[in-house]
Amino acid sequence: MRTLILVLDLIGTFVFGLSGAAAAVECGLDLFGVLVLSFTVGGAGGVIRDVIIGAIPPAAFSEWLYLAVAVLAGLFTFYCYPIVMRMRNPVLLLDAAGLGLFVVAGTQKALTYGLHPFAAALLGMLTGIGGGVIRDVLLSKIPAVLRTDIYALAGLAGALIVIVGTKLNLSPIVIACTGVFVCFGLRVLAMQYHWHLPVAKIE
Amino acid sequence: MRTLILVLDLIGTFVFGLSGAAAAVECGLDLFGVLVLSFTVGGAGGVIRDVIIGAIPPAAFSEWLYLAVAVLAGLFTFYCYPIVMRMRNPVLLLDAAGLGLFVVAGTQKALTYGLHPFAAALLGMLTGIGGGVIRDVLLSKIPAVLRTDIYALAGLAGALIVIVGTKLNLSPIVIACTGVFVCFGLRVLAMQYHWHLPVAKIE
Amino acid sequence: MRTLILVLDLIGTFVFGLSGAAAAVECGLDLFGVLVLSFTVGGAGGVIRDVIIGAIPPAAFSEWLYLAVAVLAGLFTFYCYPIVMRMRNPVLLLDAAGLGLFVVAGTQKALTYGLHPFAAALLGMLTGIGGGVIRDVLLSKIPAVLRTDIYALAGLAGALIVIVGTKLNLSPIVIACTGVFVCFGLRVLAMQYHWHLPVAKIE
Repeated sequence: MRTLILVLDLIGTFVFGLSGAAAAVECGLDLFGVLVLSFTVGGAGGVIRDVIIGAIPPAAFSEWLYLAVAVLAGLFTFYCYPIVMRMRNPVLLLDAAGLGLFVVAGTQKALTYGLHPFAAALLGMLTGIGGGVIRDVLLSKIPAVLRTDIYALAGLAGALIVIVGTKLNLSPIVIACTGVFVCFGLRVLAMQYHWHLPVAKIE
Repeated sequence: MRTLILVLDLIGTFVFGLSGAAAAVECGLDLFGVLVLSFTVGGAGGVIRDVIIGAIPPAAFSEWLYLAVAVLAGLFTFYCYPIVMRMRNPVLLLDAAGLGLFVVAGTQKALTYGLHPFAAALLGMLTGIGGGVIRDVLLSKIPAVLRTDIYALAGLAGALIVIVGTKLNLSPIVIACTGVFVCFGLRVLAMQYHWHLPVAKIE
Repeated sequence: MRTLILVLDLIGTFVFGLSGAAAAVECGLDLFGVLVLSFTVGGAGGVIRDVIIGAIPPAAFSEWLYLAVAVLAGLFTFYCYPIVMRMRNPVLLLDAAGLGLFVVAGTQKALTYGLHPFAAALLGMLTGIGGGVIRDVLLSKIPAVLRTDIYALAGLAGALIVIVGTKLNLSPIVIACTGVFVCFGLRVLAMQYHWHLPVAKIE
């Protein structure tokens, strides 16, 4: 199970790294900037969560595999940008899976550190969306997650599954799979059917 | 006294939440983005302070009332934006009160954690202005507090009152009231008479 | 040695403070904004590092000399902006020295707190470039370090010298001097000969 989680976690880091590196390439950053964005998008959510719950030093710094995977994603995007672009649809699918995974792992870690369930759900969602927010802030854009699609909401749904499942004393494996599946499914459906949240009317 | 502080604190969170949500609505963010901005502006200053002084997990995550109040402010702004706009003047007054309150509470909390008085004053000011800075960074603007009016300076004055009062062993209630009053008064006078700090000359 | 490091550290803070304040003046910020940028660029890298390794409260808040030096740099830039501009070349040299110093001190501090050498190198680099990244984010620009010149890479080279030297059990003084010198030299050569990292091709 531990190995499974690590593998899934690293897949998430790789996919998020691809998304960060692709955004960096499109903004004309140099190789180093691309690698920074790739590491940031893959790791920032987890770093913020770990600092807030007091898990020092954060996993992204204490476990070299995260950096290696992120650098790999960055190098691949940098040298094979056209390929990454042609794979946009599969990448979006993987990104949805990464979101689900980061949210579930983040929520469970926050619970382990004794946080109130509601705070753990917030932090789990933050783990999933944090990387993308920092990416957009660094590229001087308004974070996409704040203005488009059902993204963070799918994350929040996954986090709530974990909270409810833990209350019901279900097995952690069942909880994790359900949480990832619900979050992934919601995100994919939202992309497929262009679900949006309402925008306020200003007359 | 404890109840009084909590009530005032929540009023501050609500007012700061209104300001964050209003800015989000004006930038065309969706409902989720509006709620995030509302929670961020109400809570970010305190979260940064708590991470720096080591008060883990931060109050905004461990006490659900903060989130509830911030969400309320966000929903109200989202669905009643015209009303919030018509109340701009009262909101600015409440915002000045919120600033005073956050600064005083932030300085006192930092002192409790054994920080040097000068560091506590800095952190107190940061607690007051942090939410607004993050709001503007997320909306991809240069933070307003860095370029306009006497805002942070009013906060610093309130923090210094707390430091001096604590040195003189005055009663915490007297210190808090004086600090909030001085900060609030300075801010209101600065708005009334359009006080500005100088800008450097570039020839 | 301790005094030497403190002196060099404060020189670094002063020079980074100049760079932050100059950028703030160019964006038309008021006096307070200039002082904030000056303190931020001088101190933010170290604050992020200290929060991540758990050195609470960060040195920039517990040691008043840092704030004093940063404020001095800010006031000088604010009132003597033309002088600072005429000194641009010496300032760039001092900035390169500041980078080397912050990176070396950051890496050594991270090692002291028991971080894995590879994480310590990352954090050391972050200490050197963090202030500049926050400066650009606050001024709503894409961080310069991500798009131009060999800057962060020079920092990384300095950090690796510290890691290798520590593995070889060399004297800390020798390590520090070599690290600063290599980082400084690389940075100066990169400026002199306009070395750039490649940018990805988008067809």
